[in-house]
Amino acid sequence: MGNLKFGRETIRLEEAQARVLRFVRRMEKERVPLTEAAGRRLAEEIRADHPVPHFRRSGVDGYALHAEDTAGASGRTPVRFEVTETIPCGVMPQHSLGRGQAARIMTGAVVPEGADAVVMLEMTDRLERDERTEESDAAASVGVLRAMMPGENISPIGQEVAEGETLLPGGRKIGPGEAAILATFGYSHVPVFKKPKVAIFSTGFELLPVEASLRPGLIRNSNSYMLACQVTDAGGEPTIMPALPDDPGKVQSALAEALEWADVLITTGGVSVGDKDVLVELFAQWDGELHFNKIEMRPGSPTSFGCWQGKPLFALSGNPGASYVGFELLARPYLRAALGSSDPLPQISSACLDADYRKGSAYPRYVRGTSRVEQGMVKVKPAGRDQSSIMISIKDADCLILIPAGGQGAQAGALVTTISLMEK
Amino acid sequence: MGNLKFGRETIRLEEAQARVLRFVRRMEKERVPLTEAAGRRLAEEIRADHPVPHFRRSGVDGYALHAEDTAGASGRTPVRFEVTETIPCGVMPQHSLGRGQAARIMTGAVVPEGADAVVMLEMTDRLERDERTEESDAAASVGVLRAMMPGENISPIGQEVAEGETLLPGGRKIGPGEAAILATFGYSHVPVFKKPKVAIFSTGFELLPVEASLRPGLIRNSNSYMLACQVTDAGGEPTIMPALPDDPGKVQSALAEALEWADVLITTGGVSVGDKDVLVELFAQWDGELHFNKIEMRPGSPTSFGCWQGKPLFALSGNPGASYVGFELLARPYLRAALGSSDPLPQISSACLDADYRKGSAYPRYVRGTSRVEQGMVKVKPAGRDQSSIMISIKDADCLILIPAGGQGAQAGALVTTISLMEK
Repeated sequence: MGNLKFGRETIRLEEAQARVLRFVRRMEKERVPLTEAAGRRLAEEIRADHPVPHFRRSGVDGYALHAEDTAGASGRTPVRFEVTETIPCGVMPQHSLGRGQAARIMTGAVVPEGADAVVMLEMTDRLERDERTEESDAAASVGVLRAMMPGENISPIGQEVAEGETLLPGGRKIGPGEAAILATFGYSHVPVFKKPKVAIFSTGFELLPVEASLRPGLIRNSNSYMLACQVTDAGGEPTIMPALPDDPGKVQSALAEALEWADVLITTGGVSVGDKDVLVELFAQWDGELHFNKIEMRPGSPTSFGCWQGKPLFALSGNPGASYVGFELLARPYLRAALGSSDPLPQISSACLDADYRKGSAYPRYVRGTSRVEQGMVKVKPAGRDQSSIMISIKDADCLILIPAGGQGAQAGALVTTISLMEK
Repeated sequence: MGNLKFGRETIRLEEAQARVLRFVRRMEKERVPLTEAAGRRLAEEIRADHPVPHFRRSGVDGYALHAEDTAGASGRTPVRFEVTETIPCGVMPQHSLGRGQAARIMTGAVVPEGADAVVMLEMTDRLERDERTEESDAAASVGVLRAMMPGENISPIGQEVAEGETLLPGGRKIGPGEAAILATFGYSHVPVFKKPKVAIFSTGFELLPVEASLRPGLIRNSNSYMLACQVTDAGGEPTIMPALPDDPGKVQSALAEALEWADVLITTGGVSVGDKDVLVELFAQWDGELHFNKIEMRPGSPTSFGCWQGKPLFALSGNPGASYVGFELLARPYLRAALGSSDPLPQISSACLDADYRKGSAYPRYVRGTSRVEQGMVKVKPAGRDQSSIMISIKDADCLILIPAGGQGAQAGALVTTISLMEK
């Protein structure tokens, strides 16, 4: 690619994202206990191997009966039924119902043969159930105070889920609703994609380890911990590596060593003119493939991406804001795709800008934003000072606001495109 | 409380939530490595023990100089400076600048004494930096092509954070932005609240363990796995317990045993007329305190809450939808408060109803909803069939739609109150 530092080809973010997704390596599968599957992504499509419900289920507590037999029933003219048995949940009925017969039945229990409706307890003259006399229910009779329609208060087989129905696509993230489905269909262990192992490197001689005391001119490394949190949230397994040395040969060895176990490499810093530029120097001499090193975006235009030994290297800008945004727009989509998501790019939305944003830019700008909803309308404003060097306001961002390129910025009240920072 | 089954006092949801929050036991603190702190909640307020930056930091790559000395500089009439040294990041300057002197400086490096501005490399005649000649920079001179203002491209001490400033409140959940702050201030270990241990019990004879084969009339227990996922998301540590027996004495022993190690108990089922009612029977005979057993809401009106030996017991309805909603509206706020959140109740928002909801209800109804944003406006509609017995559509909900009590339901286009299901 010639002079990588000054002869960079500038591409649009959408093109950069497309190039990243072209090199995704899908993770291998593993099976984990359902109790440990929260937040993981399914490695297989889940289909219903049985209908739900798989028996005719009573939707209420009452009496199962034949609807026709209730014709004309009312509070003044109850129709009497002979009670054949009591059917608790989880117990199969003993008897088919004949005409004029009813069975005491609980919510969720199996409706007996011969019944095509369940009348609620409240619509009978046996309003109060007494546990101690339940045994005698079978011998008793009940008066029904309302005429019933066939099918009333019965969930037919397959009402909720038909046999063979696709329940969850591969790549779906497992939350409470997914866990309920997996449990219903007997997945005590769940096929999920292995967590991508992500090695996180920093560059820069000004960086101290987090446990070190502050010294003049030096700051503690915060990018690596921020990125580790982002990686975890995206379903990866981060490892914070020692800072990279200032020697392209040694950088190459450090990365090569990590490649032995890591699925993804992320570096911060060393990509722009004026930095120590170790990544730029690496890209000039390595035997990997550099897929881009300049994007039409602020912050993080020198964000670079390459593949080495088939594995991706995201070289993010060193500024905290630029690293943060670079991860969200490029590395997170990679991780999501590697974990099987069919929709790995960030979720695009829109909002009403709540404050002027007066800073023009030659490139589209992705401003960290804080949103709120007022009368159904999403209002968004920059989250504190959003200079890319400012770390303190990253915590307040729940979206990125896209400010189009140009000299004007955007005015309060304008409808703007936003990018959600919530993991789907 | 007299006849608990039929003589229930019905209270509003807001009152139920207030009662729950009255009995919150704040968790103890522990210290965890920063790398394991993602998603945990801070047990202490975090204050800045130093300013950020803690030195005058160069915001660009260029030359530090005295702004006054650049008066009249332009592309046609560059002003020449003697270059005293090169200041990389992390290295203290060797020299104070005199008049007419400049120091080559990198982004993030310490601005030397005597300088009050940094001119970007691009605004000098030394546009291209050549690593190999950097050594000779100190002896060279540079032409500046633009007049500078005092303070330009220098971040003064404390610009981002003043010493003593409160950075993060106690109870704050740790995400990427919080991790960056904690790293910057040297928290290699972070004070967080211990995860509440939550024992999850189910009731009902129709329930099979998830690993069991399906049998007539029986269904697999899905509520416990769903709730475990919700507990994990809320920052707790769930344990799925064996199903409760149908004997109030044995139920009491099982719960008492769990109380020895659990901070919170959750049960599903057994609270309403027509169930096997084991929880209702327990409440009639235990020595704990029942704080409510009927709420003006659908689903889940018989949701009950009590305290036993100072620990909370949430007795949720057995229907999947009712358990789900009951957890979100009552148990999650408890967990959030126990983890130090100052704002534990669910986040209330608003949206435009995207479809008619025709079902009236004597009580306010909390309908699982799916939202999207169109031209900045939040549109919401029920997530599939929302009968409380339907489990399959829980996965599609990202909010709850509040349908006010009354016979009408709500019309498409109406502005409705929603409750976010995203963990803050």
